[in-house]
Order: sequence, then C-alpha cells, then structure tokens
Amino acid sequence: MALAVAKERNASVVAGATTGNAGSSMACLAASMGMRCVVFVPESAPPAKIAQLLVFGAKVIAVRGTYDQAFDLCAEVCARRGWFNRNTGSNPFTREGKKTCSFEIWEQLGREAPDWVAVSCGDGNILSGLWKGFYDLAAMGLISRRPKLLCAQSDASDAVARTVQHVRDIGQVDWMRVQVARVRATTCADSISVDEPRDGLAAVRAVIESGGAAVTASDADILAAIPELARGAGVFCEPAAAAGWAAVKKAAPLGLIHPEERVVVVLTGHGLKDISSARKVAGEPLVIDASLDAALAATEP
Amino acid sequence: MALAVAKERNASVVAGATTGNAGSSMACLAASMGMRCVVFVPESAPPAKIAQLLVFGAKVIAVRGTYDQAFDLCAEVCARRGWFNRNTGSNPFTREGKKTCSFEIWEQLGREAPDWVAVSCGDGNILSGLWKGFYDLAAMGLISRRPKLLCAQSDASDAVARTVQHVRDIGQVDWMRVQVARVRATTCADSISVDEPRDGLAAVRAVIESGGAAVTASDADILAAIPELARGAGVFCEPAAAAGWAAVKKAAPLGLIHPEERVVVVLTGHGLKDISSARKVAGEPLVIDASLDAALAATEP
Repeated sequence: MALAVAKERNASVVAGATTGNAGSSMACLAASMGMRCVVFVPESAPPAKIAQLLVFGAKVIAVRGTYDQAFDLCAEVCARRGWFNRNTGSNPFTREGKKTCSFEIWEQLGREAPDWVAVSCGDGNILSGLWKGFYDLAAMGLISRRPKLLCAQSDASDAVARTVQHVRDIGQVDWMRVQVARVRATTCADSISVDEPRDGLAAVRAVIESGGAAVTASDADILAAIPELARGAGVFCEPAAAAGWAAVKKAAPLGLIHPEERVVVVLTGHGLKDISSARKVAGEPLVIDASLDAALAATEP
Repeated sequence: MALAVAKERNASVVAGATTGNAGSSMACLAASMGMRCVVFVPESAPPAKIAQLLVFGAKVIAVRGTYDQAFDLCAEVCARRGWFNRNTGSNPFTREGKKTCSFEIWEQLGREAPDWVAVSCGDGNILSGLWKGFYDLAAMGLISRRPKLLCAQSDASDAVARTVQHVRDIGQVDWMRVQVARVRATTCADSISVDEPRDGLAAVRAVIESGGAAVTASDADILAAIPELARGAGVFCEPAAAAGWAAVKKAAPLGLIHPEERVVVVLTGHGLKDISSARKVAGEPLVIDASLDAALAATEP
C-alpha cells in the first residue's frame, strides 16, 4: 500500500525505520519499481535482516541507538530531503496494507471471522490494521461479529499492554485524552522492542473496543514458544512472532479464552531472520568424527 | 513422499544426510507425524540450516567431513539400526516427490510446459525428478513436448556437467556403462557441493534425453546472481539456487537458449539460510551515531 502511494506521488526515494521486517518488504518492492530505498535500522538489528535489506538493494543506515531513535531520524531526514516516509504509525497507508491480513484470515476460514486473533505488538500497527480490516468486513455485511484481539507483548516491551490496563482501570473512554505509556524496551524479540509505540493509541483502542485483552509473556516463555510452534504447527518463526502463541498460552488459563473459541495466531516473521535466538532454545548438534564407530555411538538407542 | 512411505512402513526413525534443505523439510514433517528424525550434516553446513533442523526437533549429527561422508554414515547407521533411510538418490521415493515440481510449473504456466527448466544440480535428484514429472505429463497426454533441462553447477562442483560432456564427446548411449565423474567439490554453494552425485546418472540422462545442456558458473558469478535475482525478480535465494540463474546467463550467449524461448528457473533455497554468502556481494550498512547531523551526512545526495 505504502509503495503504491509513493509511486502515485512520484517519490524519488522511499525511506523508513524498521528492525527489518517492514524494511525487507519495502526494499524488495522498491527494487521492483526502480525506486531508491533508504532504511534506518537500530545497529542491533539481527544480521540476517540487515543482509536481506542489502541484497534487495536498499541503502541501510545502522543507527547506534534504539529503534525509536532510528524512527525519529528517518522522519527528520525525510522532511528535510522531501523523501516519502513510510514510517509505521505515522504513514497512514501502512494500516491500509496491514488490514488485508484480516481479509486473508476471513477468506482462509471459509469467509468467517474467528473468535480471537492473537498477534504480537510493537508499534501497534498490525493490531490497528487487523481491527480496521474486520471493521470494514463488518461494515460491508460480510461478517456479523468482529473477533476479539489479543495483544501479545514481551514483559520487557509492554507499553501497549500497560496502557490497556490503565484505560480499563480508570474506565477512561475519552480517546483524545489517553496517553500511551512509554517504556524502556529490552526484549530479545527485536521486531517488538519499542519504547514508544507509534500506533499505540489505535492499538489500545482496537483491543478494548474488540472486547479483547493484552497479555505479556517473559522473553523465556517467548523463546520456548519457538520450538513448540515449529514442532506443533510446522512453522519456524522469530521471537516476536512466537510472542503471539506465548500470549495465548497465558490467556487461556486466565479464562480470557474459552475452550470452544476459535483462535487465529498471526506469526509475523520467519525464524531464519534471527537464528541466534532460536539456538538458545533449540539445543545443539552432536559433532562427531567421520567414522562408523562414532556414528553408531552417537545413535545408541 | 518419503515421509509418507516411512509412515506406511511404520518406521520408528527416519534419517537422512543433507546440508540442510531436504533435512529441514524432513524434520518439519517428521515432527508433525510424531516420528523421530535424525539428520547427518557436514559440520560446515550453514548455521541457519542447523538451527532450523534443531528447532523442528531433529537429532542433528554434525560430521567432521564432507556431505558424501555424512551420506555414507547415514546409510550404514540406517542399515544397522533398521531406520528408514531418506538419503537422496538412494531412496527412490524422493524423486517421486521432486517430480511434483514439474506439475506445479505446468499448472502455474496455464497447463503448458516451458521451453527450458533451469535448476542447480548437486546429487542430481531435482533434475531426475523434474524429468520424471514432465515425462509423466507427456505420458498422460497433458503436454505435447517436454522441456529441455538446463543443469546448473558450480565449476567447483561439476561432476554431472563433466559427465554430460563426456557422454556427448563419446556419443555413448549405453546407459548401463556410463560412469558418473567424481570430483573434489569446494563450492561455496553448500547445497550443491557434492563429490559423488548419488542420482547423477539419472540427472545426466535427463539432461541429454531432454535435449538440454549442462553449464557451470564460477562461485563469483553464482554469488553475483543473488542480488540480481533479489532486485530483478524479488526473490532472495541462497547460492545454490542462484546457480540456476547464473547458468542461464552463461547459456544464452552460447546460443543454447534462444531469445524467444520461455525459461523457468527453479530457485531451490531461501537466502536467509546462508547470509554470510549474501553479505559477500550485498554491500555493508553505513553505521552512524544517533544524531541528525550524522543522518544528514549519510544521506547526502
């Protein structure tokens, strides 16, 4: 969506801050359109994500700082240079792109909405996009009720979850007055490591208006969810993605999700994008000499 | 296919030697079936591939040696332990699986065969599988002519290409007498680094009987093909996969492929499986301090 708008506006350069996932899509699509692409990443972004950006031809600027600092620098550079700024949460068109995920879920479930959609939350843009998508489906009369949204965060990057709790505590419904919490994010799930969620208010509102919930999981629980998903569902995903499943596992025993409800977990990034996290929980290979004796010893029943 | 047969035979353990691609499919599917999976890899297999195997729950045995040594050890261990051996080229069912690639190409081209299918070649099993698939389509009357097969190898792992040349040189057509060359493979394209292609004879025959060709490219050309494919076709692939495109670029000026012919290049592995190779040709990020001055300097037109 964002790239289509950039093209419509004859942008010479499209830029964005990302830890790598939105960036690789942007770089790939920009290459296909012959448009220059500049990506600001925090220097700590996983090497695989940086490699992917470079392979697609993006100019990659690795900022010695946080995602939030990369975000602000990107916005300022775009303003000075007249570039098209795709930053998540400030560019309104990314949400229009994200909402198509709702259409896909609806289509793949045989034109029905599930009871819950669980997804990890960093900037909040996927949640706000999902909400908009289901809102549109309901407005078109294609679904009779919208799903509840489960916001999954790490307890080491929980700005949206904190704000959901705060709004519920005070019963605040004047959305113009709600302030999204700021945190100091330290989660290993890089894609959702966000101090200041740029689409946070819309995400909080989506969770509450859907009758959903926000749940945090520890980084240890998030990492443990990676092999569980791989072995149980056949999908190898990155930590941020696994947070969605970790949150479902926490929400169910709390009674938030009922046994008969249908839950879709959106997995938001491939495991090969961050193998160092995967290796922390996946075990190690057994290294042997190239001899039959060694091979038989290694495979002793 | 192989896993379905293993299940039919009530195998307790499925094992195979692989540099990682066949292995990750095997591990993923074995997990879904509750079957134990043991994978023998050369110790030099890329870390991402080993991580993927482990995440899917395979027991990974990293052999201090070549793929060929891992292959032989796997076969011997399977024979001793009564395990189901999925080794490419010795298990006949992998070819039956690979041939479905031909059906997909035919289907996606609107139920037509292309003029050429280009694909990288290690053990030769993809080539022999593609050939069998198109053979079956022709036998069923669904295509009137089979495509020519372009075997793509690194010049640092060229056993099949050498043998194709040898057979053409001597005009040998008694397939029972053809010996596949052995080489000392050193290519950086790990998935096609094979001293002794285990399905090599069938691959040589597929190339010759299809009226195709075998072309080698240097590792430098193979690596250069990675960003070309990413930027030109939107697909980030590993070196072995890129060899297919590198071979097409060599075959065209030789007159092997004509301008009006339709060529399908099969890309056989994702780029995130080997980012160190990608980084050799993709450039480097520009690392800056988190300041506007640094960001403006880095984005000077």
